Amino acid sequence: MVYKYVHGGDIYSVQANRPGDYLDFSVNVNPLGLPEAVKAAVAAATEECRNYPDPFCRELRAALAGWEKINWDDIFCGNGASEIIFRLALAIKPRKALLLAPTFADYARALQTVGCGIEYYDLRAETEFRVREDYSAYLTREIDMAVICNPNNPTGQLCSKAFLKRVLAECREKNIFVLVDECFMDFTDHPEKYSVREYLKDCPNLIILKAFTKLYAMAGIRLGYALTVNRDVLDRLKLCGPDWAVSSLAQAAGICALRQEDYVQQSKLLVQTEREFLIRELTALGLKVFGSRANYIFFLTEGVPDLSQKLLAKGIIIRSCADYLKLNPCFYRVAVKTREENRTLINRIKDVIQHESRAGCD
Amino acid sequence: MVYKYVHGGDIYSVQANRPGDYLDFSVNVNPLGLPEAVKAAVAAATEECRNYPDPFCRELRAALAGWEKINWDDIFCGNGASEIIFRLALAIKPRKALLLAPTFADYARALQTVGCGIEYYDLRAETEFRVREDYSAYLTREIDMAVICNPNNPTGQLCSKAFLKRVLAECREKNIFVLVDECFMDFTDHPEKYSVREYLKDCPNLIILKAFTKLYAMAGIRLGYALTVNRDVLDRLKLCGPDWAVSSLAQAAGICALRQEDYVQQSKLLVQTEREFLIRELTALGLKVFGSRANYIFFLTEGVPDLSQKLLAKGIIIRSCADYLKLNPCFYRVAVKTREENRTLINRIKDVIQHESRAGCD
Repeated sequence: MVYKYVHGGDIYSVQANRPGDYLDFSVNVNPLGLPEAVKAAVAAATEECRNYPDPFCRELRAALAGWEKINWDDIFCGNGASEIIFRLALAIKPRKALLLAPTFADYARALQTVGCGIEYYDLRAETEFRVREDYSAYLTREIDMAVICNPNNPTGQLCSKAFLKRVLAECREKNIFVLVDECFMDFTDHPEKYSVREYLKDCPNLIILKAFTKLYAMAGIRLGYALTVNRDVLDRLKLCGPDWAVSSLAQAAGICALRQEDYVQQSKLLVQTEREFLIRELTALGLKVFGSRANYIFFLTEGVPDLSQKLLAKGIIIRSCADYLKLNPCFYRVAVKTREENRTLINRIKDVIQHESRAGCD
Repeated sequence: MVYKYVHGGDIYSVQANRPGDYLDFSVNVNPLGLPEAVKAAVAAATEECRNYPDPFCRELRAALAGWEKINWDDIFCGNGASEIIFRLALAIKPRKALLLAPTFADYARALQTVGCGIEYYDLRAETEFRVREDYSAYLTREIDMAVICNPNNPTGQLCSKAFLKRVLAECREKNIFVLVDECFMDFTDHPEKYSVREYLKDCPNLIILKAFTKLYAMAGIRLGYALTVNRDVLDRLKLCGPDWAVSSLAQAAGICALRQEDYVQQSKLLVQTEREFLIRELTALGLKVFGSRANYIFFLTEGVPDLSQKLLAKGIIIRSCADYLKLNPCFYRVAVKTREENRTLINRIKDVIQHESRAGCD
């Protein structure tokens, strides 16, 4: 088996090769950056770091219970959402799983560690990469786990709550676990219209995944969590990894982050405005934008080869989607950042396109 | 499956039940605490935490390569040594493993997640809990992984390098992976006499486990690493968990910690002096001390029932070894701390013993 890194955000390799400052649009975190109060909470928490972290994240889960309006016993915290995906694969050990294609790479990576077979439900450009009503037909007798990323990464497309309610009921009948990854949900305009959180209490087959990473720009700190009322799954999650997965620093950061209500409101407003700005500007440049309901934009460039390489030479990192299943090197994903940064991105893309078009005329 | 926490250091549950300050002897970390420079490095690193951590821990591994005198390609960093134990179980998926009994609980916990059968090599009080020459007889055809914690936790007993050299050769012949956990090695008086690091290059079946947790009192930050020249195992370790397991804060802490040479020298000297003090004093109190070559003391109390409960009432947490295989509630482990703390421990134990003996006279 050969390991390959398949995500954005490895600025360290870029910077090692070509030192300098880069604008990183390849990772989808809050453009406002880590709140100052959270930085201070982390610094304060180092004073207690000779002690092991609370293995049960008691204070953090109590705070999360209030935020998520859920019983704290139904919350499991992990070393980022990605750690929870790996634990869940080991905890459930599905034999065959149904994934969207394209979607976040770690579901397949994690499921493969336990020898799980994978079926793909193809999302198609002609239907705007939406999950269609025929999804149910793929929930065959063989499938014992289905993963739906909502909004989906990298497309930013949402599934409706009514649709998911039907899927959940059908999966419950067929003994299929459903993992709904809502890591980007808080950046959508009306999360309450799409989140399946209210179905948790009636769906022991439902696990919801969430993260602090994106909403609080805490990618370097690592903190995610899962919600489920399934006691057996919760026990297995604890068994399937180390007791001290969540550092004391991450716990302190999370507790403090949940108090940053103004920051969250401000962030959501900024993302909403800037998302519309980017969609408008990219479309005006002749690029085709799909979905993009969260804090990242998914688009197709035809006739502009190697856009990511050309932008890299101009100091901008974007996420080529060439390594996603069912996508090709014409698809890209960019994060929504601040107006100044977004304008720089648009101007650089404009430069590339104009250069291409001049080159085409030569 | 029902989860149960089986380690020391859960001060949060104690403090929640009985608020107040406790002296925690239940976890074996450097009594000098986290170096101030490391705290400052963590605080500085929060400034960059909107970025994902370097998934390859490049700078940290380069620093470790110098410290361990090993190629940086032969190093894998994880979210504490305990995370690496779980990854290794998933990466190797042994069918049957040979563990010491008693030993650190996470080897069995991790191996059980992949359905690995476990055989135990019993350490015995009558031979001071040493690994004996008959160990080889347990390396049967069925075994495909052997774990030796050196010095062993909780006994603090060491295996000699000559013995381990023979075990490694025999295991190589029999296609048995050997995990040697040297997490406490840096606290022994002559690590170079016991560490198998020099055998790495000739033993592709050898994996050495190490941690920052203990030597730098970084338990709350989470940072451990594995050393092996086995490319396939290294690739599988990367595949068997999330890419961003080591937070940016932990990487920064580790890089800074490796520069704290004076602190390390001072710590080793302190631990050496205080270990001898504790052994002398506990023995004088009529307790039987075994092994104890690292930064913790393993002892037997006969005729002093419920010592840990009685010390807890006096504000001191020690590690009852009742939940270790092959041990009973008369065995305890205490960390080596500063002279003042150690003296408090000894005085409190003296109080308990005197009270018992008076109660016995009533």
